[in-house]
Amino acid sequence: MQQTLNAEKNTAAANIDGVMQNALYAFNQYKKFSSAKRAAFLETIADEIEKLREQLVPLASEETNLPLARLNGEISRTTGQLTMFAALIKEGSWVEASIDTADANRTPPKPDIRKMLVPVGPVVVFGASNFPFAFSTAGGDTASVLASGSSVVIKAHPAHPETSALVFSAMQKAIAKTGIPQHTVQHVTDTSNDAGKALVIHPHTKGVGFTGSFAGGKALVEYARQREIPIPVFAEMGSINPVVFYPDTLSKNAEALAAQYAASITLGVGQFCTNPGLLLGIKSKGFDNFLSALGKEITKVQPQKMLHSGICFSYKNGLSEMLEQQGLQVVAQSSTDANDNEAVALVASVDAKAFLSNKHFTEEVFGPYSLAIICDDAAQLKQCLQSLNGQLTSGIMATEKDVADYTDVIEWQHTLAGRILLNNAPTGVEVCASMVHGGPYPATTDARFTSVGTTAIKRWVRPIALQNFFDAMLPDELKNDNPLGILRLIDNVYTRDAVRKA
Amino acid sequence: MQQTLNAEKNTAAANIDGVMQNALYAFNQYKKFSSAKRAAFLETIADEIEKLREQLVPLASEETNLPLARLNGEISRTTGQLTMFAALIKEGSWVEASIDTADANRTPPKPDIRKMLVPVGPVVVFGASNFPFAFSTAGGDTASVLASGSSVVIKAHPAHPETSALVFSAMQKAIAKTGIPQHTVQHVTDTSNDAGKALVIHPHTKGVGFTGSFAGGKALVEYARQREIPIPVFAEMGSINPVVFYPDTLSKNAEALAAQYAASITLGVGQFCTNPGLLLGIKSKGFDNFLSALGKEITKVQPQKMLHSGICFSYKNGLSEMLEQQGLQVVAQSSTDANDNEAVALVASVDAKAFLSNKHFTEEVFGPYSLAIICDDAAQLKQCLQSLNGQLTSGIMATEKDVADYTDVIEWQHTLAGRILLNNAPTGVEVCASMVHGGPYPATTDARFTSVGTTAIKRWVRPIALQNFFDAMLPDELKNDNPLGILRLIDNVYTRDAVRKA
Repeated sequence: MQQTLNAEKNTAAANIDGVMQNALYAFNQYKKFSSAKRAAFLETIADEIEKLREQLVPLASEETNLPLARLNGEISRTTGQLTMFAALIKEGSWVEASIDTADANRTPPKPDIRKMLVPVGPVVVFGASNFPFAFSTAGGDTASVLASGSSVVIKAHPAHPETSALVFSAMQKAIAKTGIPQHTVQHVTDTSNDAGKALVIHPHTKGVGFTGSFAGGKALVEYARQREIPIPVFAEMGSINPVVFYPDTLSKNAEALAAQYAASITLGVGQFCTNPGLLLGIKSKGFDNFLSALGKEITKVQPQKMLHSGICFSYKNGLSEMLEQQGLQVVAQSSTDANDNEAVALVASVDAKAFLSNKHFTEEVFGPYSLAIICDDAAQLKQCLQSLNGQLTSGIMATEKDVADYTDVIEWQHTLAGRILLNNAPTGVEVCASMVHGGPYPATTDARFTSVGTTAIKRWVRPIALQNFFDAMLPDELKNDNPLGILRLIDNVYTRDAVRKA
Repeated sequence: MQQTLNAEKNTAAANIDGVMQNALYAFNQYKKFSSAKRAAFLETIADEIEKLREQLVPLASEETNLPLARLNGEISRTTGQLTMFAALIKEGSWVEASIDTADANRTPPKPDIRKMLVPVGPVVVFGASNFPFAFSTAGGDTASVLASGSSVVIKAHPAHPETSALVFSAMQKAIAKTGIPQHTVQHVTDTSNDAGKALVIHPHTKGVGFTGSFAGGKALVEYARQREIPIPVFAEMGSINPVVFYPDTLSKNAEALAAQYAASITLGVGQFCTNPGLLLGIKSKGFDNFLSALGKEITKVQPQKMLHSGICFSYKNGLSEMLEQQGLQVVAQSSTDANDNEAVALVASVDAKAFLSNKHFTEEVFGPYSLAIICDDAAQLKQCLQSLNGQLTSGIMATEKDVADYTDVIEWQHTLAGRILLNNAPTGVEVCASMVHGGPYPATTDARFTSVGTTAIKRWVRPIALQNFFDAMLPDELKNDNPLGILRLIDNVYTRDAVRKA
């Protein structure tokens, strides 16, 4: 038996070696393609996915239990991301071109130095279970890698293998149509841990993108630590997304807030990394009213199927462990007539003292669950926030009066997360230039980057400086006459002008 | 004895805990200071250092054996870096402000999201032995941390403790004069490894900057791996800075190249991270002439004192180990009448076959030593380059004809380093916006950042997104009317305009 296992392990490693050799070969061709050609490739992937929409939506629904409307929206989000990155690289200024011109008269003479961002090499992307399109095969990680000029190896998620294969077929058609090197995109369907490990530790791998659980992300980081040459692993992991409900808004808007948050907690059966898992407030009539109204809303929610039985099993386990913690009280739950793989929505509460004495309350329970923390005063509220780990989001539900009254607590909320929201629910991650879908560890492995929005491309590049080059040797981005018309920093001034000849 | 050691260890850890508590307290005040005030602080540090120039130069020369002229120049470089960062933050656009405005008519409604870079928190900077000013106490790392808005803890280098203390006194004067929180800059003089470790693993430490040996950088990375919450360690370590001499330029400029490189190899007794340690060429009359002329120049060099006895000891050891390697031939060396702590300059050569079969040849020997690699042809030259680890610099000595003839090899040179130079020697690192003083591992721990130039500030920040904020709550950088007049990306357009009201 051991022999068979070893043989399988060796096969996985050997296969992955072939994949990564191909990825490096493709990278060395693909990186020379112009931004315009790379953009056309991304747009063609979007077109080919659009053509398969009628097949993809029911197939993904069968594999993930997600409703058709949501999946239709997610396909649009996915093609939108592809065209967004195409637009970004067509415009071209994202490379942060910078030019310091020579000065022969200075002592010592000043050389000509020009800098820009270049792709690092093959990247491995691990698909997510909860977004079969937008964070999987041709999702944001893949789109940002291809936009940057690197090749990509996609590890298909075992929870939606057919969907992943069909999306990959669309990418293959786009490769053929646009004359992109064949192995610029590869699809690994071996779902073993060995294959995942072999991908992360392979010397040709220059970066890893992952969206999923803390355990999964941590495992990839540990694999990467075994490498001789380190690489960045961008893992977007767990978050309980604390939301603070301040007194003045609670006194005025308790019912509306309850409706807004009942919807956010149960959206997509709570299967979002931005699901609001912690609701903090100061003991008051307003907070009581909010929790009571929230309870009423939650009771009305119909149980819904989760992504797959493993996730539902984890949710039920996590929930029952949580319910055993001292001091926790159930505020409300949806119908308990849940069928197989269906999740019961549940909101509980605990007083701040009990919360502060038991780290278990800060654990993520992935699903439609949220915990309210009842604090005695602002000092205790701040103490609760200070006890939290890094988060993706930090919510402020407040009036202008609250903002003036609680500056100190609100300031602390800024340090907690990558995105801070005022009077919005955290679910719903806008795909745009200003988005930060990231945050301090353990929400992600690197708070300096985002996995959503245009700047997600910055994960797969490094700067190089070219000193004293002949103009003809320079990439278009750095040539004197600025043929791409991009924004550049020339001698510390931002401009789209050409370099003035001395 | 064991007990005494443990007691010392505990004292170090306890002291460091106090230092880091103070650093966090100061950070929480200092980060609220405006850019203008931070800039004035940096400029005042520069002024106070300038006032001490007459004391600093001889003191540093006594501690480091570096000549007065060099140290005078290095003080100017240091004050120049401080005022450069002051100018950067006064201009203000470095925060990468980005605004996506709301659209209530979209389905679903689009929220207002605004992003900028913010400081991460207290940073620990380890001074370098070879730059007592520019890469030490008030050097580039410290200046970039203070510009970013974080507090800094400086670990003084044991090779120049008095110089470090005097520079720190200048910073303290600047703190008092500009009303900056007292512990924004702290100076740790405990030179034990325990103190260094305690600084890196302390939970309040959010980043580490280091310039030095591979062993030193690696140790800090290993400490950081013991943390619960990971932080980035930016270590700029070893590099042998390969330079390729192409045939056409060798046939025309052998003597001039020899003079240029003899100067570069022996500059500052070879004690630069950018010292050209590897000279590659294809076997030819031109390369022979170059090596013979280089040998003549090296013979003329007078032995000079190295920074301290430990470095000189390492150089002599490294050199004698290198000289024992099979296939190595000495081309030339300077006078062997070297006194204590003086280094003999030496150039050796080896054929590519021997080089490729022995990894030892790629080891850095820190000092005025360089190894020429004699290749049979372009294919073997490329093979030699491919056998190298990541580097700070990669040199191309070539005519336009060479550039046309050797595109493939030159392209490979781009992947090797953070800075690629044409017909310049790698020593001399210009302090400017376009500089990349960095490169793939093991030249540094993170090829995505530079430790010299304005973008060095990017090591100490992370982006945050603020969603749906009241205008009055936003930092000035993101307010509608753009009070700082900085360049911002508004709805994907770069502009200094205000946000147009809907």
